[in-house]
Amino acid sequence: MVNIKSQNSRRDFIRLSSLGIAGAMVLPGIKTFAARNNPIGKKMGIALVGLGWYSTDILAPALQETEIAYLAGIVTGTPSKEKIWAAKYNIPEKNIYNYENFDEIAANPDIDIVYVVLPNSMHKEFTIRAANAGKHVICEKPMAVNAQECREMIDACEKNNVGLSIGYRMQYEPFTQEIMRLGQEKEFGEVLHISCGGAFRNNNLSHWKWDKVMGGGSMMDMGVYPLQAARYSTGMEPVSVTAQTFNTREATKGLADEATTFQLQFPNGAVANLSTGFHANYNFLKVRAERGWFELEPFSGFRNIKGRTSSGELSFPDVNQQATQMDEDAISFAKGERPRVPGEEGLKDMIVVDAVYESIKTGKTIMI
Amino acid sequence: MVNIKSQNSRRDFIRLSSLGIAGAMVLPGIKTFAARNNPIGKKMGIALVGLGWYSTDILAPALQETEIAYLAGIVTGTPSKEKIWAAKYNIPEKNIYNYENFDEIAANPDIDIVYVVLPNSMHKEFTIRAANAGKHVICEKPMAVNAQECREMIDACEKNNVGLSIGYRMQYEPFTQEIMRLGQEKEFGEVLHISCGGAFRNNNLSHWKWDKVMGGGSMMDMGVYPLQAARYSTGMEPVSVTAQTFNTREATKGLADEATTFQLQFPNGAVANLSTGFHANYNFLKVRAERGWFELEPFSGFRNIKGRTSSGELSFPDVNQQATQMDEDAISFAKGERPRVPGEEGLKDMIVVDAVYESIKTGKTIMI
Repeated sequence: MVNIKSQNSRRDFIRLSSLGIAGAMVLPGIKTFAARNNPIGKKMGIALVGLGWYSTDILAPALQETEIAYLAGIVTGTPSKEKIWAAKYNIPEKNIYNYENFDEIAANPDIDIVYVVLPNSMHKEFTIRAANAGKHVICEKPMAVNAQECREMIDACEKNNVGLSIGYRMQYEPFTQEIMRLGQEKEFGEVLHISCGGAFRNNNLSHWKWDKVMGGGSMMDMGVYPLQAARYSTGMEPVSVTAQTFNTREATKGLADEATTFQLQFPNGAVANLSTGFHANYNFLKVRAERGWFELEPFSGFRNIKGRTSSGELSFPDVNQQATQMDEDAISFAKGERPRVPGEEGLKDMIVVDAVYESIKTGKTIMI
Repeated sequence: MVNIKSQNSRRDFIRLSSLGIAGAMVLPGIKTFAARNNPIGKKMGIALVGLGWYSTDILAPALQETEIAYLAGIVTGTPSKEKIWAAKYNIPEKNIYNYENFDEIAANPDIDIVYVVLPNSMHKEFTIRAANAGKHVICEKPMAVNAQECREMIDACEKNNVGLSIGYRMQYEPFTQEIMRLGQEKEFGEVLHISCGGAFRNNNLSHWKWDKVMGGGSMMDMGVYPLQAARYSTGMEPVSVTAQTFNTREATKGLADEATTFQLQFPNGAVANLSTGFHANYNFLKVRAERGWFELEPFSGFRNIKGRTSSGELSFPDVNQQATQMDEDAISFAKGERPRVPGEEGLKDMIVVDAVYESIKTGKTIMI
């Protein structure tokens, strides 16, 4: 391990550790990450496509903490947002696009990465347009509205020789990385059971997340987190899927799935019983293995993930997941390397999500 | 509140509180519960029917801590156990029965209560025989192998004018009682979601708990705890049931259900996603309501229940659940009052258990 003295360096080292690039590259005493460690010798410009809550309140602020990636441009369908963002983040007019002229971004050397933060039903179109424009893509989760769309997105990125990463965040977070290690390296033996739930009370009934056509629904929005957790805790793909959905309020009748429960069985026999919803607030992951257990609560929050195992409390720094992901993805893209959460990872989830909806529709167990 | 000085009295007061009979009846300075507080003026003799692990390691020791109920007799099909128990617990020969001469217990004034601790498929027969012998009955959980058997047992006890209690334990435990209060009194508003699991790794594949004909299966053995928890946390009966079962080991193929997951919806819309099994070790209850949450972990262990709410840690004494239940039931029986967990409570669970197995068999949602 490298002996790091300054306070800033400690934080940087933590970030670097989670980027997997700490160690020999650290030069103690040099304060900024970029000057010290930028393994690609340049910054990478990101354009955010879709300026809703997540871009506004989470990604743009995170891009003030990144050291490789930076906020270079925006793509919005709301003209009034252009000036506000331009002024706030010093974005030149030439880096501002709308959904019609978006394809002209191909000619803009300031933009290396397009981050698609649109409603789920628009992920495919804008990922493919970005790829065709020769830009690397980060696409928000869930990757698309079904597995077939994911395959088309992966194909488009491969054809254009650009990188594709899915905005899952958690794989860049150190508690989550430890859970992945404990499960996949069988630290406590084979995983036997996973109980996991991620849900929030969503009272904003006019939001697109309640609209099936826009790719809404609790399974799409929050269900992918317990699904991811079951997959990353085991390192396996499920072989069977059952699912149920529940309407809990008069006001949400006819809207996208409000509360959904689903069960996976893995090739080693392990069972996962998972819950998601727009009906209640909960966020926990409990994994039980042959010789012990490990758990996180919250497990998919933006900050302050907490965890413990049958051997004791887990202790890791609290990182800015989005900043870490964008920096690490920027490095991967620049080096032509596969990002930590490539399109294939989003596809694997969406194969299960398709099965969840198929099971809900048919009442049957879906074998994958 | 009564000012209690002595150490013993503190423990007694706790026990009394959970019995709901503390307060004005407490006479400080008098040491034994029975002498001080016995509201029925006598002890009540219990005969344990079936001397397996639970009777041997749990109930008989608990009966050394009771102050109203006491171990007066045994009923066993294993002659070698008779002498061991007689010597260890000073049981006179006239209070020892086998399954053939059991009905002669009717003439034995030492036995007030028969506690049925047999395999589940024998609960009905011995409960009805005990009732016909004029004895009050405590029957282990699950009450029987289906709802129809429960109804026959309730009828037999009513006809013979004897009490019937189900050995659920948890309703006599103070953390559990607080959870019931928080949910049923809507302390944090309407309950919206319950995640609960109770399971243990059962490697004793020759035990009757793996034998369907004997009333085995994880749903029967452990599944009734999460089911109870969902019911006592809401104070409601579910309106719909879905369920799935999983075989997780080659060695358990063809045996009773190994890992079972089930989902309940309640009349207020609340969803419960529940897990049980013989495949893994876990034991937790998480309740989410409109304005807060409450949870126990473990929630159905014999000792050391722990819990917290969105307002902070819960703090209650650790009680001997079995001793508390047997004392309280003895008092209820002697007074001709309805016990805390009457046969009707076991029946309500078994109606849902029937629906769980029906859903597993048909793949359908069962409306209750």
